Amino acid sequence: MATTLVTSDEINYLIYRYLQESGFQHTAFTFGMEANIAKSNVNTASVPPGALVSFLQKGLQYTELEQAVDARGDEVLYDEPLSLLN
Amino acid sequence: MATTLVTSDEINYLIYRYLQESGFQHTAFTFGMEANIAKSNVNTASVPPGALVSFLQKGLQYTELEQAVDARGDEVLYDEPLSLLN
Amino acid sequence: MATTLVTSDEINYLIYRYLQESGFQHTAFTFGMEANIAKSNVNTASVPPGALVSFLQKGLQYTELEQAVDARGDEVLYDEPLSLLN
Amino acid sequence: MATTLVTSDEINYLIYRYLQESGFQHTAFTFGMEANIAKSNVNTASVPPGALVSFLQKGLQYTELEQAVDARGDEVLYDEPLSLLN
Repeated sequence: MATTLVTSDEINYLIYRYLQESGFQHTAFTFGMEANIAKSNVNTASVPPGALVSFLQKGLQYTELEQAVDARGDEVLYDEPLSLLN
Repeated sequence: MATTLVTSDEINYLIYRYLQESGFQHTAFTFGMEANIAKSNVNTASVPPGALVSFLQKGLQYTELEQAVDARGDEVLYDEPLSLLN
Repeated sequence: MATTLVTSDEINYLIYRYLQESGFQHTAFTFGMEANIAKSNVNTASVPPGALVSFLQKGLQYTELEQAVDARGDEVLYDEPLSLLN
Repeated sequence: MATTLVTSDEINYLIYRYLQESGFQHTAFTFGMEANIAKSNVNTASVPPGALVSFLQKGLQYTELEQAVDARGDEVLYDEPLSLLN
């Protein structure tokens, strides 16, 4: 499968949208200026609401998946859900 | 596999760290105040550098994986890598 | 006449009010945090709207007055008004 | 004596300089953007350090002067200095 890399422009735009959608209006203003969001090369029309949260959620699931599948390819069952930051 | 949900506190802390690590000092200051990062419940010591980018990268790979595996479970081969925001 | 000194707390509070009254909401938020306005010792209830502008205006007039009165105490007439920043 | 009015551009630039000189770096950044300081018409080279504080100080002295001189033109003596915000 092709390897896809996330660009800084994409990450910054996802954050900017998250800040706006979450009501962090002062941070959104400052970030818009400091990261020069207006000059971003991102196709902003294609970013659905909640995109950052959705990608992070998938990132966590993928991390779980990696940890759950051991060397032999067997699935390991966990009793408790993983936490994103542990 | 257990379903794991990302909390707002976790997302905000990952963003805060990204802002700091990327040199967005003014945004980091404003976000720290507006999102009340100092009172976050996140176990901040366990967050490695680059965590936000790493999770987004994994999220993208997982999205690719989902799209690559069709209904019959076969893997589909792409000629070009997917973009995070398309 | 007694000499009166302006304190940092007073200046910061006058600026904070000016920012709010002038619609600079993002700057007002950031300044409120960075200058710790909430813990100011200023008697905020006694500050009328437009106080900063009013004091600056008076400061300019006083500067004009000083310049207009020469060593002998005579008033000097100007053809043009002074500018605050010249 | 000619009446001199302070412009918004002048006030904003004085504040901007004060923020920089006083170490309020995050507020200075945000204000620079929100008030569009870079496009100011002020002759910035002519503004000495501490200009805002100096003008406010003079404004306070002028206010004292006005209050100290009563209707007959006599000087009134105060036991205590006036406060800027009282």
